Amino acid sequence: MPGNTFGTILKLTTFGESHGKAVGGILDGFPAGVEIDEDFLKRELARRKPGQSELVSQRKEEDEVEILSGIFEGRSLGTPIAFLVWNKDKKPEDYDHLKTTYRPSHADFTYSQKYGLRDYRGGGRASARETVARVIAGSFAKMLLREPGITITAYVSAVGSVAMDKPFNNPDMALIDASPVRCPDQETSSKMIDLIKETAKKGDTLGGQISCVVHGAPAGLGEPVFDKLHADLGKAMLSINAVKGFEIGSGFAGTRYYGSQQNDEFTTDGNRIITKTNNSGGVQGGISNGMDIGFNVGFKPVSTLMKDQKTVDEDGHQVILEGKGRHDVTVVPRAVPIVEAMAALVIADHWLRNQVARV
Amino acid sequence: MPGNTFGTILKLTTFGESHGKAVGGILDGFPAGVEIDEDFLKRELARRKPGQSELVSQRKEEDEVEILSGIFEGRSLGTPIAFLVWNKDKKPEDYDHLKTTYRPSHADFTYSQKYGLRDYRGGGRASARETVARVIAGSFAKMLLREPGITITAYVSAVGSVAMDKPFNNPDMALIDASPVRCPDQETSSKMIDLIKETAKKGDTLGGQISCVVHGAPAGLGEPVFDKLHADLGKAMLSINAVKGFEIGSGFAGTRYYGSQQNDEFTTDGNRIITKTNNSGGVQGGISNGMDIGFNVGFKPVSTLMKDQKTVDEDGHQVILEGKGRHDVTVVPRAVPIVEAMAALVIADHWLRNQVARV
Amino acid sequence: MPGNTFGTILKLTTFGESHGKAVGGILDGFPAGVEIDEDFLKRELARRKPGQSELVSQRKEEDEVEILSGIFEGRSLGTPIAFLVWNKDKKPEDYDHLKTTYRPSHADFTYSQKYGLRDYRGGGRASARETVARVIAGSFAKMLLREPGITITAYVSAVGSVAMDKPFNNPDMALIDASPVRCPDQETSSKMIDLIKETAKKGDTLGGQISCVVHGAPAGLGEPVFDKLHADLGKAMLSINAVKGFEIGSGFAGTRYYGSQQNDEFTTDGNRIITKTNNSGGVQGGISNGMDIGFNVGFKPVSTLMKDQKTVDEDGHQVILEGKGRHDVTVVPRAVPIVEAMAALVIADHWLRNQVARV
Amino acid sequence: MPGNTFGTILKLTTFGESHGKAVGGILDGFPAGVEIDEDFLKRELARRKPGQSELVSQRKEEDEVEILSGIFEGRSLGTPIAFLVWNKDKKPEDYDHLKTTYRPSHADFTYSQKYGLRDYRGGGRASARETVARVIAGSFAKMLLREPGITITAYVSAVGSVAMDKPFNNPDMALIDASPVRCPDQETSSKMIDLIKETAKKGDTLGGQISCVVHGAPAGLGEPVFDKLHADLGKAMLSINAVKGFEIGSGFAGTRYYGSQQNDEFTTDGNRIITKTNNSGGVQGGISNGMDIGFNVGFKPVSTLMKDQKTVDEDGHQVILEGKGRHDVTVVPRAVPIVEAMAALVIADHWLRNQVARV
Repeated sequence: MPGNTFGTILKLTTFGESHGKAVGGILDGFPAGVEIDEDFLKRELARRKPGQSELVSQRKEEDEVEILSGIFEGRSLGTPIAFLVWNKDKKPEDYDHLKTTYRPSHADFTYSQKYGLRDYRGGGRASARETVARVIAGSFAKMLLREPGITITAYVSAVGSVAMDKPFNNPDMALIDASPVRCPDQETSSKMIDLIKETAKKGDTLGGQISCVVHGAPAGLGEPVFDKLHADLGKAMLSINAVKGFEIGSGFAGTRYYGSQQNDEFTTDGNRIITKTNNSGGVQGGISNGMDIGFNVGFKPVSTLMKDQKTVDEDGHQVILEGKGRHDVTVVPRAVPIVEAMAALVIADHWLRNQVARV
Repeated sequence: MPGNTFGTILKLTTFGESHGKAVGGILDGFPAGVEIDEDFLKRELARRKPGQSELVSQRKEEDEVEILSGIFEGRSLGTPIAFLVWNKDKKPEDYDHLKTTYRPSHADFTYSQKYGLRDYRGGGRASARETVARVIAGSFAKMLLREPGITITAYVSAVGSVAMDKPFNNPDMALIDASPVRCPDQETSSKMIDLIKETAKKGDTLGGQISCVVHGAPAGLGEPVFDKLHADLGKAMLSINAVKGFEIGSGFAGTRYYGSQQNDEFTTDGNRIITKTNNSGGVQGGISNGMDIGFNVGFKPVSTLMKDQKTVDEDGHQVILEGKGRHDVTVVPRAVPIVEAMAALVIADHWLRNQVARV
Repeated sequence: MPGNTFGTILKLTTFGESHGKAVGGILDGFPAGVEIDEDFLKRELARRKPGQSELVSQRKEEDEVEILSGIFEGRSLGTPIAFLVWNKDKKPEDYDHLKTTYRPSHADFTYSQKYGLRDYRGGGRASARETVARVIAGSFAKMLLREPGITITAYVSAVGSVAMDKPFNNPDMALIDASPVRCPDQETSSKMIDLIKETAKKGDTLGGQISCVVHGAPAGLGEPVFDKLHADLGKAMLSINAVKGFEIGSGFAGTRYYGSQQNDEFTTDGNRIITKTNNSGGVQGGISNGMDIGFNVGFKPVSTLMKDQKTVDEDGHQVILEGKGRHDVTVVPRAVPIVEAMAALVIADHWLRNQVARV
Repeated sequence: MPGNTFGTILKLTTFGESHGKAVGGILDGFPAGVEIDEDFLKRELARRKPGQSELVSQRKEEDEVEILSGIFEGRSLGTPIAFLVWNKDKKPEDYDHLKTTYRPSHADFTYSQKYGLRDYRGGGRASARETVARVIAGSFAKMLLREPGITITAYVSAVGSVAMDKPFNNPDMALIDASPVRCPDQETSSKMIDLIKETAKKGDTLGGQISCVVHGAPAGLGEPVFDKLHADLGKAMLSINAVKGFEIGSGFAGTRYYGSQQNDEFTTDGNRIITKTNNSGGVQGGISNGMDIGFNVGFKPVSTLMKDQKTVDEDGHQVILEGKGRHDVTVVPRAVPIVEAMAALVIADHWLRNQVARV
């Protein structure tokens, strides 16, 4: 039973193999009457684009989005918004050597086992190419979230073992985008760049961590007991390629606190009830409390190395997989808009869901 | 829009407030013809029961499950299995002081904001009492998983800052259940117990970590791209009360590895293709690869302290919340069967989903 | 994959076999803050009760509903409303002769084929006993619909070949409930009663038709393209036991009109745009237009006869099924509240769905 | 909340306005390994095409389908199958006069009321143009149903008041497609053609009825209690433009039978248990019984007349809507493949659902 749809009221269904004709999706449940900002959409897409700096993959995807439906005279119709991006930079022959070989820590083996056949060209459906559809849909979600004034900002908080000290505080979008690795702390950013360059020389790869802050969300988002806000955020993030971990608020560090350290004391700011600290990450009992929603997402290192690896082919014979092509050393800088997009889809969906929570 | 249902083919819907008449649920999509082992169900429920040792809460819930439908002459009918547990140990008057007060890091404030009213008695719907329904449903899922020979074993791998060294390896159910804190490593178990006792004296509380291993799952479970196996496991775990983090395989630690360290080299074991290491935690591209599926779940410290805390009431006036009653210092030992139950529901659902992946 | 849940935002999941412990359900997605009128609920349930007149089955179901969750101090909490009715009048031994025999036009054979086993006592899950849960849930839906002022009224418009002349016009609840067959036209009502009595003497049974009018629904309910309002109403009605047909507005008769006869001319009533005629039955393009929503539901004759029938047992051997017990000659009078309940669930769900159609 | 997705395991989501860029959809849940017959797909699409005879609309849609994903080397991948048809014959200026006018019995008024804006060009999303996506998806469903040997055949059984005598019996595809109105009974077909021509002269339009037979379905399809097979078929049919009624088996006529006439006596054919008659239409208790599944679908007359009609504009002012353009007198001949497509989607979905009904 398929798993290509995300969301409950605002539903995104994506399609596409990396070297098929196109990738894209249908965003359904988007309310009528929202002003559509196509320039914003293009900028968001550009943020995901490969080849943005010397640090990342040079596949030249032009990634022009074609919107097929759902918009009329600059506003959403309330009907499905379908969109696609043609796969222009297809060189399927580059992948002939993978026809029968299972790359370590890739999805080649598992897709073969599940489906009995697979599109081996560039990862097929398992390729991160699919996330272009998420970024497009996320842009629409962000347009919708302008209405209640909710903003979503992600940034790279760690590359390999180089990490920022203090997460979640006042991420400044300008500082983030000024950094080639999208880390708002300039000193850490420089160290990350150095580490990436060193690692590239070794033909090796790096993982990292993205932190994300949702600002301006009202109290009340999240649906107990299973669709808790952070449970849906967690699923959204874990569905992104290469993600292996998710934590909200003080997260795993907080599991080592005493309750008296972890608890967020309530107080007031004018008439508004707030918490003094925010170890909860803006979510209590699965429902947003009006504070910033903050979470971390852990990405494993890129699986494609620029050096030889041992593996097996589909008959179980050992083969050597040569390191070739040009690949990212780490995906985290490019994954920032993907994290934001998935967060925007979750928050927009829950904002809509919350409209019917009470009479 | 509600969030009280979990799963796609195997669907659990739960109901109940902690001090209402009953808690329970409906498990739909459970295939016909499965032998029902009611003794096993009772044992599972007993593992979750409070008051099992001096270390945990003394509320005497008898927690006798009443099955209302879906079973006939010892086998499942293919129709919904409804079940409930009556709330016998209700002392709603114990909670009168919470009518207008928002306990720090509890769900009182967020439920009020979302719904405009709340059942303030003992946490209402937000109480961990709800998880009794998950354990019951999870027991059925485990009965179903006997068919393909899949087992699920969780244990406490950390309490506060006391942690086991090596997770995921050969968890032995007998050792786990022999430990009052459900930690299979006896030395660590003792340290955990000491820490809990010390902390209890201070009126403070502790968080911790549960590790879980799914053994015997075939390759092929998991549905790209959104319903990746670990994304659904992550959501399942994050939907459990007090959970703040989830990681699969090498998880957050793995984000600091080089790709050459993280990658799991393919090799063979007889005719079977396996991986030499298992940093992937048994899942690649969102689909199980036949290795053990291993993940960690982080729980924050219990929010109810046995010492006074500052907070506000619904009018924003500052009040002191007295520490009283008897509560767990940490939930992790009792949460072990809950983690297993949610894992069983996810794996069973995906096992069913995978039946229709190909012709 | 199960089919025991109905609705998208307002979701009803039912459970229960006719001779199991209980039947009931969980109504999820019911907004918080709705005043709960338990007397109304009891009256609705009483309308469905067997043994209300000499014309219908004498099984004495007391049908007292027990509400287990979701309501607090007279108002809905926004959490799942679980409810059950115990099966008190169980005489499973009455059904021993059906253990291996397939009753004509009953579900015995198909359940056996699908599930490989079945609860043969009184129809098990296939029994109309399940509809008690629908009536309970429908009562809650009607309470919710008081908010926008929507009312739902059904009545018997045909029993066998005795039919009312003019359907859909001003159904008067008092006249309906004054008739033992729930037909508001007194003359037709008398003829229906005569026909039922005659047919009873012959040991035979009758079908019939229920008409239903939804009054006060605003324009805008219904979700193109698949969840058109009348498509969801149709599914709802066809899911009721013994229903074989559904039509909206002029229905099948309208298929024989010319377009110039069928079309509903727009005009105004004060400031409001209305249609002069209502052959559309209040729905155009799948969306309500503000006029009364009217539809007909066709019920086949009761399958259990009071005379002998030929059939086969599970081994394919011919057997004679004796006519015994006491059964309704026709279900339509008792099905009136069931039709209303399912209509209320559909309309309430779509009323909620429409809250998020536009910003 | 959106309604553009149909199905549970096999899910079709469609998109597109009639005069937007394209219409199309994503078919998800289609199992891997199915051989894809693109010629068959083209033939199916050709059956729906306008301008096939003098009897139907002359809009020249070339309707070439472009498949974007999900197929590799002639077989399905198990990933979403996305497809589109470009809207080539767009003349939006033809519709300027409809910008502010509500056509009688069209969806102009209801879309405006629901969404606050609408794409007025040619019906926008409400146009029957959307059904091209259904026919494409239905073709894939038919390819899947070749596996279990299930065939689906629909035909026109009535146009206006000209109706076939005996429905459901041995529909011969060759005879159906030989008739310009797709009625397999030649004499009735001629009368229908005469009626259509006469009506065209008057500038008026006609409705009609399509009958459909599903042959070869095993016993066991259908999911009690809400997703009964005929309930899902009913919803599928009622979601097609202009459909106002649905009945299965003896349908509304059967509501006037006595039980002793309606009941289908069980007997055997060799080792197989069958029924002597088939008033049930192949479905009992919501589950297929292995006999042919037969149902009727009622279509109202086309709403666009070739003569003047009174109506109102968006300000409530009375206007005269002139009859112009070239439109079908009746949609039923062209709707035959649409009925088949929707039936195929329902049956394929339930065939997949039934794979997990028992262990």
